[in-house]
Amino acid sequence: MNADFDQAPVLLTGFAPFGGEASNPSWEAVQRLHGERIGGRLVVAHCLPVAYAGCLPQLRERLDALRPALVLCIGQAGGRAQLSIERIAINVDDARIPDNQGRQPIDEPVIAGGPAAYFSSLPIKALRAALHEAGIPAEISQSAGTYLCNHVFYGLLHELHLRGDARVRGGFIHIPYSPAQAARHAGAPSLDSEHVVRALRVMVETALSTHVDRRLAGGAEH
Amino acid sequence: MNADFDQAPVLLTGFAPFGGEASNPSWEAVQRLHGERIGGRLVVAHCLPVAYAGCLPQLRERLDALRPALVLCIGQAGGRAQLSIERIAINVDDARIPDNQGRQPIDEPVIAGGPAAYFSSLPIKALRAALHEAGIPAEISQSAGTYLCNHVFYGLLHELHLRGDARVRGGFIHIPYSPAQAARHAGAPSLDSEHVVRALRVMVETALSTHVDRRLAGGAEH
Amino acid sequence: MNADFDQAPVLLTGFAPFGGEASNPSWEAVQRLHGERIGGRLVVAHCLPVAYAGCLPQLRERLDALRPALVLCIGQAGGRAQLSIERIAINVDDARIPDNQGRQPIDEPVIAGGPAAYFSSLPIKALRAALHEAGIPAEISQSAGTYLCNHVFYGLLHELHLRGDARVRGGFIHIPYSPAQAARHAGAPSLDSEHVVRALRVMVETALSTHVDRRLAGGAEH
Amino acid sequence: MNADFDQAPVLLTGFAPFGGEASNPSWEAVQRLHGERIGGRLVVAHCLPVAYAGCLPQLRERLDALRPALVLCIGQAGGRAQLSIERIAINVDDARIPDNQGRQPIDEPVIAGGPAAYFSSLPIKALRAALHEAGIPAEISQSAGTYLCNHVFYGLLHELHLRGDARVRGGFIHIPYSPAQAARHAGAPSLDSEHVVRALRVMVETALSTHVDRRLAGGAEH
Repeated sequence: MNADFDQAPVLLTGFAPFGGEASNPSWEAVQRLHGERIGGRLVVAHCLPVAYAGCLPQLRERLDALRPALVLCIGQAGGRAQLSIERIAINVDDARIPDNQGRQPIDEPVIAGGPAAYFSSLPIKALRAALHEAGIPAEISQSAGTYLCNHVFYGLLHELHLRGDARVRGGFIHIPYSPAQAARHAGAPSLDSEHVVRALRVMVETALSTHVDRRLAGGAEH
Repeated sequence: MNADFDQAPVLLTGFAPFGGEASNPSWEAVQRLHGERIGGRLVVAHCLPVAYAGCLPQLRERLDALRPALVLCIGQAGGRAQLSIERIAINVDDARIPDNQGRQPIDEPVIAGGPAAYFSSLPIKALRAALHEAGIPAEISQSAGTYLCNHVFYGLLHELHLRGDARVRGGFIHIPYSPAQAARHAGAPSLDSEHVVRALRVMVETALSTHVDRRLAGGAEH
Repeated sequence: MNADFDQAPVLLTGFAPFGGEASNPSWEAVQRLHGERIGGRLVVAHCLPVAYAGCLPQLRERLDALRPALVLCIGQAGGRAQLSIERIAINVDDARIPDNQGRQPIDEPVIAGGPAAYFSSLPIKALRAALHEAGIPAEISQSAGTYLCNHVFYGLLHELHLRGDARVRGGFIHIPYSPAQAARHAGAPSLDSEHVVRALRVMVETALSTHVDRRLAGGAEH
Repeated sequence: MNADFDQAPVLLTGFAPFGGEASNPSWEAVQRLHGERIGGRLVVAHCLPVAYAGCLPQLRERLDALRPALVLCIGQAGGRAQLSIERIAINVDDARIPDNQGRQPIDEPVIAGGPAAYFSSLPIKALRAALHEAGIPAEISQSAGTYLCNHVFYGLLHELHLRGDARVRGGFIHIPYSPAQAARHAGAPSLDSEHVVRALRVMVETALSTHVDRRLAGGAEH
């Protein structure tokens, strides 16, 4: 069993485009790492649909098939200025806009009967410190929203909880618009794909090698 | 017992000043409603210390002594532009700045062994709708931060959960700087005390009369 | 002639609603001061149309008829968090949205052949200091935009320049949304009418009594 | 004389670091283009000091020595999310922080007796359109501030005006923090050097080939 875990890959997921965008930088970045080895583990990339109906079944199938040691789900947060490392997933779907299949749940649980929230099992402060050291703008975020990013984040942590192997860790990372997207959104901040791809490598490496998170302030007064 | 509940008061809490401010508009607003009757219930106001050591014991003592039907805790969110109705309290203290006694916990639980989070038991969408109808700028917030506001919010919901009377509801509201505070913070938004006091009345009335929340979108993509 | 100037009134202008709003707090505030005496002078309020075709002719007519000692034009800056005291008017109309008559000039001069800009002749730093002392959030702004507010501001200063009486001073003040407007604009900051009216009184008094502006930093790096 | 102008180079200036930063991305980007040929002209880069005492004399010396056909001055606007093309330079120095030699002018003219402002002589709307087409986030800015960037911008346009050759055009571009700088400024947006260098190339090419600016809205209501 340890041998199995030692060989276990890293699963990175991105999302398909949504909200009128032609591409989704989360999938573009993740895709570029597919097949790489980081920290001795193979990286497998997967693109999730922006659809409440399909995203968690696909994620579960990937978890079953790959039995990964680490899972990072990546999504886009158009309007945020820095890469953000999410602290907590909450058990609610409250969609301001419909998903790509027209579904728009309001105040429904992600998993009926699930706990109110799960904390990321990534070493979030260590990730931020490593990114800053690499010159990449990043911050801790106290909310992943209530749309599909939070839905997948909660679903992932619930699945990992059910599977019960504490060595397997997972979390969610939000990335800004790409510069090309920001060129179509007046005044919006962006982060280029080179920095995003480099950030993903740094985070996978750091998550694999950090077993106890660092004690660094990363909170917010409100 | 029903007779008791029918007579039960409304508890409003505010905070003492912190972070270098000379006053705290949360306490100033709450204080002005002390002794009023709203929706047939007496309003009792209480000022909580900005101190991890003292705030929850004081809150528990007030809950024991008053056995309120409704609890609204109010705190200040300097920098926010609108009154915000908090959706969820999370089980973590992560202080960017020390409290008024110099304590600065990092990534410690509010309640060791407590669940990751509690959802507000206020009808948050109905509150927002009632505020908008009254011409008061208000929004749903997906995070109350990780400082004393979230600490009190989580502690309140944990206490109400332990007491087990589902009729008793509670939640947390963040208010902007007062105009006088904003005059000392270049570029910061504010909301005047008349609007805040009016907002508190509207929310207490609405919370007392709304038993099932309204189905209105109030989420965020991220 | 000095006797005339000593009796000269103060002219305050506001704007009619635009951009889909039902009211314009600039006119509502100005209107409330109509007929008051401040600093020994009568205040006369006038509502300007949001139309390139009509606003400057109306302003000129008011200047001719009233021969005011001081002119403050007030406009709304939806999205700004504080009252802003404009430093400079520039000779360009560049409209992102059409005016109330459908006109939308792009990169045309306000006054063909006029200078590139005029500085406000108000003591802008003294106004800000007086507002802060009164607990009203206010800041110096380096740009009044390129829409009708700037158009009127430039037109006013050009007229005063042509008339050549250096004792007559004028400037432009932007105010935030009212709370009721902000309730319809998710996340937008606001300032209530009591503070705006009080601010106007403070500014008129200060402008009338301050003949040399105070030397206080109020710039921006960019 | 036409032959001279046909051979005239392009002058790009950046700034030395200031405000506690270790580097200034404006100079780093500009430097990378030194010696390149764009649109048939040689690019010469020059680093200006962040000092009221020295920057304009150095700029004048470069104008005398090089007699450039086009001048783009580049500065950093920490906190802005997009590259911004400045529309207008104003005749005021109002420094919130001292320059690198400790000088901090307040409400002094850049050039005593100069006009209140000069408009950029770059085709600013054409530049923005070309940047957007190249996938680079950029916007028109109505204010270059009141610090050294505006000082150099005003000084440049005043010099070009005095020299009187309308074929020689100049303007100012603000760029965001680099990602490495933003990693030290919580929540700040950034733009990487690859995009900045590419943007400079696009702007030089477009400025050299565009003789009448495009009629595209680029204004602001306030």
